[in-house]
Amino acid sequence: HNFATCWRIQISRSNGKMREKSLTMDTLNPQVKAVEYAVRGPIVTKAGDIERGLQQGQKHPFTEVIKANIGDSHAMGQKPITFLRQVVALCSFPELLDSSSFPEDAKQRARRILQGCGGQSLGSYSASQGVDCIRQDIAVYIEQRDKGVPADWDNIYLTTGASDGIVSILKMLVSGQGRSRSGVMIPIPQYPLYSAAISEMEAVQINYYLDEDNCWALDINELHRAYQAAKEHCHPRVICIINPGNPTGQVQSKKCIEEVLHFAYEENLFVMSDEVYQDNVYSPDCQFHSFKKVLYEMGPEYFNTVELASFHSTSKGYSGECGFRGGYMEVLNLDLEVKAQLVKLLSVRLCPPVSGQAAMDVIVNPPLPHEPSYLQFHKEKRAVLGALAEKAQMTEQILNTVPGIKCNPVQGAMYAFPRIFIPPRAVEEAMSLGISPDMMYCLRLLEETGICLVPGSGFGQREGTYHFRMTILPTTEKLKVLLEKLRDFHIKFLKEYASLEEPKR
Amino acid sequence: HNFATCWRIQISRSNGKMREKSLTMDTLNPQVKAVEYAVRGPIVTKAGDIERGLQQGQKHPFTEVIKANIGDSHAMGQKPITFLRQVVALCSFPELLDSSSFPEDAKQRARRILQGCGGQSLGSYSASQGVDCIRQDIAVYIEQRDKGVPADWDNIYLTTGASDGIVSILKMLVSGQGRSRSGVMIPIPQYPLYSAAISEMEAVQINYYLDEDNCWALDINELHRAYQAAKEHCHPRVICIINPGNPTGQVQSKKCIEEVLHFAYEENLFVMSDEVYQDNVYSPDCQFHSFKKVLYEMGPEYFNTVELASFHSTSKGYSGECGFRGGYMEVLNLDLEVKAQLVKLLSVRLCPPVSGQAAMDVIVNPPLPHEPSYLQFHKEKRAVLGALAEKAQMTEQILNTVPGIKCNPVQGAMYAFPRIFIPPRAVEEAMSLGISPDMMYCLRLLEETGICLVPGSGFGQREGTYHFRMTILPTTEKLKVLLEKLRDFHIKFLKEYASLEEPKR
Repeated sequence: HNFATCWRIQISRSNGKMREKSLTMDTLNPQVKAVEYAVRGPIVTKAGDIERGLQQGQKHPFTEVIKANIGDSHAMGQKPITFLRQVVALCSFPELLDSSSFPEDAKQRARRILQGCGGQSLGSYSASQGVDCIRQDIAVYIEQRDKGVPADWDNIYLTTGASDGIVSILKMLVSGQGRSRSGVMIPIPQYPLYSAAISEMEAVQINYYLDEDNCWALDINELHRAYQAAKEHCHPRVICIINPGNPTGQVQSKKCIEEVLHFAYEENLFVMSDEVYQDNVYSPDCQFHSFKKVLYEMGPEYFNTVELASFHSTSKGYSGECGFRGGYMEVLNLDLEVKAQLVKLLSVRLCPPVSGQAAMDVIVNPPLPHEPSYLQFHKEKRAVLGALAEKAQMTEQILNTVPGIKCNPVQGAMYAFPRIFIPPRAVEEAMSLGISPDMMYCLRLLEETGICLVPGSGFGQREGTYHFRMTILPTTEKLKVLLEKLRDFHIKFLKEYASLEEPKR
Repeated sequence: HNFATCWRIQISRSNGKMREKSLTMDTLNPQVKAVEYAVRGPIVTKAGDIERGLQQGQKHPFTEVIKANIGDSHAMGQKPITFLRQVVALCSFPELLDSSSFPEDAKQRARRILQGCGGQSLGSYSASQGVDCIRQDIAVYIEQRDKGVPADWDNIYLTTGASDGIVSILKMLVSGQGRSRSGVMIPIPQYPLYSAAISEMEAVQINYYLDEDNCWALDINELHRAYQAAKEHCHPRVICIINPGNPTGQVQSKKCIEEVLHFAYEENLFVMSDEVYQDNVYSPDCQFHSFKKVLYEMGPEYFNTVELASFHSTSKGYSGECGFRGGYMEVLNLDLEVKAQLVKLLSVRLCPPVSGQAAMDVIVNPPLPHEPSYLQFHKEKRAVLGALAEKAQMTEQILNTVPGIKCNPVQGAMYAFPRIFIPPRAVEEAMSLGISPDMMYCLRLLEETGICLVPGSGFGQREGTYHFRMTILPTTEKLKVLLEKLRDFHIKFLKEYASLEEPKR
């Protein structure tokens, strides 16, 4: 570091003038430096380099990089839902409304959306909270999903993907200094947007560990433990839940959600429920319960008091429209003045992308049984969700045949997060290289097989345990190849670092 | 405030339980509270209320609210550029690539963009910096615009509108505490994104005043004054320039840009040049000069050292595609490690909306003379820019006929920012109401005429002077009506508050 600084000064001197760069690692905002985001971390950069190398004819022990690092369905070959894209195209180029090659229900959706846009154009800014009629459609969708629990469109805010909403709500909640600094409870393992946002805002991250031995269930006693311990050094203000889980793939039971909500009620915590995988439930024993519906069923004393923000997205589910950056949040029991502050904060970024809002509208307002696109829409939706369910099961099954790998059922979402045994000699080697053992494992896997996964350390895990996250998004054939290559690699890795100790199962 | 707190506690007690909301104005992040964004401030909320009232049959002294508060071209009736929308529609629904009703050049653009997308779908996440081929097209565009000054696509980052890029770069530059806290030099008047971001990041805002008596020119002596004064209490690190100016509509001379760059070089400041209005230059005496090109012409000692980030957007220019949230930034001389940190920071938000990236691509890569869409594209572009030039001139002329209003030439951008004389008695009345005099003026204008403008206090102005910002975006006929109503209102306002003092011209 000292060497680097000297070197930079020398460079400047050689120009005949003492001029350092104004923005260097030494002067960079330390909160930016502290941010980590493993899903697009160094291993993904390396995968990109290898990919470009392959294209330029470099030799590797494989012909293709398989990216199972990010929940990016279309990049892995999933086809868009026709109806959704028809509506977006009609909104983008309204002359197509006169074309006979588009179905009437798609045209009707597009006309409704354009009516809600300034100058009937997707090119106008929407209101900061989003297009009114889309917010209304979302409220109707939520009421249906939650079997009649009332939803007020005044509580709906369109967002730029779910991430934008999550960051906005967290930003409102962060305040105080020292022991009164806001604490944010997050699951471990977690989706690293949470830890990144907490770092950037200098809030206090409070870890509650999910129970790996119990299908990654949330244990209420662990919540109490984490809360009590954190109270000593910060002010816990908010609890974040990801259901279905990312990276862990579990689906929370209704009883467990009730316990969380009761805990939040008692401890006066704001609840953030990340429900972007609400349509991605595969296990026949599991069902998605929204935090809002469970809160309602706990009675008005809960439903009228607990402050809740829940998040949804166009990027996941069966549509997988990540690139449109669409999403929404619903808030409950927000103080009226605070609500005005939220709108003010959102207004600085003007509005979420309007084509993403249009995509969100189609997801909450799909073709009805009597409409011309109904059959095709449901055929496409079933095909996507059916394939994902099949791949979820296959992933769990094949991984569990590998000695030294143990994988919980992938009940929902798009990921497996198996525990991997890393022999002590490999752990030592990683330590001597100054990287985490699962990072070393994933780097070697990438170099030897072309498979790109994310080390568990990027999501958080109990000390001394190692994992990786892999998506179940490659096509069935490619996923099978991936899993078999992974198995062979793991066995070879174990042999290479074999010691007297037996791999734990 | 005390009353409100008591009331909230009582509400909770009446539920039989002592439970306050966790997020209230008292516990809200004070940095969020400090944010102000006038372009969508209270006056715009009020305009929305009045609009809804009109729809429900409420009586007002007008039949329509005219929104001249925000640079939202399509909402004011501007038609989209056909070629741009064709490309976006083709990308959104690639089945249209087989349709004979789309021109070949639009199809060729769409195919190129889709080739750059994962799975050839607009629904994939792009790389954090944006789609490679779009970044390449942008670099080619910049080289052409700047008459051959080299542009490296590795320095181009797609953004979610220009705002996202501006906030990201500012975030990198903010650090330190107390007297070593980062200071950000901004013009006054300014676009309130800057002051809002500075508040939110708790940086120090350093005002340099533009010279109203000299067509809002930037005066280098004023820069020195502001810098020297700020050095006493913070660490000035960055200078922001908006050219063409928002809200002030001036176009900077090449000489003035040279002076700013020399100053930044000497004082080791990072330069942020907001050039989103680069296509919006109307005055025949003015020409847009990019900061980068001027830096190049100053010689390698400058071009190879001054750190510069410049910003562009799909929202302005002749396309006016605000809703797509497209934009890019080009960085120059960024430290390599810092660049990696920037990519990391951007990766947390995954990627800018891909349809916005596609829109940006069309703007930098329009039809060429031999291509089928060339004539129509240029006809549409000329029509938009021609109408804006005409309205810029008309606005200045009519405003300057009104006693007590003085308007500088609208050389570029989309706004007039005239100075208004407010009689002392009106100033007193506003003070007694606890609002700024130009806020009172704009509120009364809205209530009496339905015209929605933004008070100058939302942008900053020299103490004791008053202004408003109005866009020149309404159609020519509507703009004329607006200006005449405004004239009549102003004369009536002056009469109402008349005192012995004469209005200043």
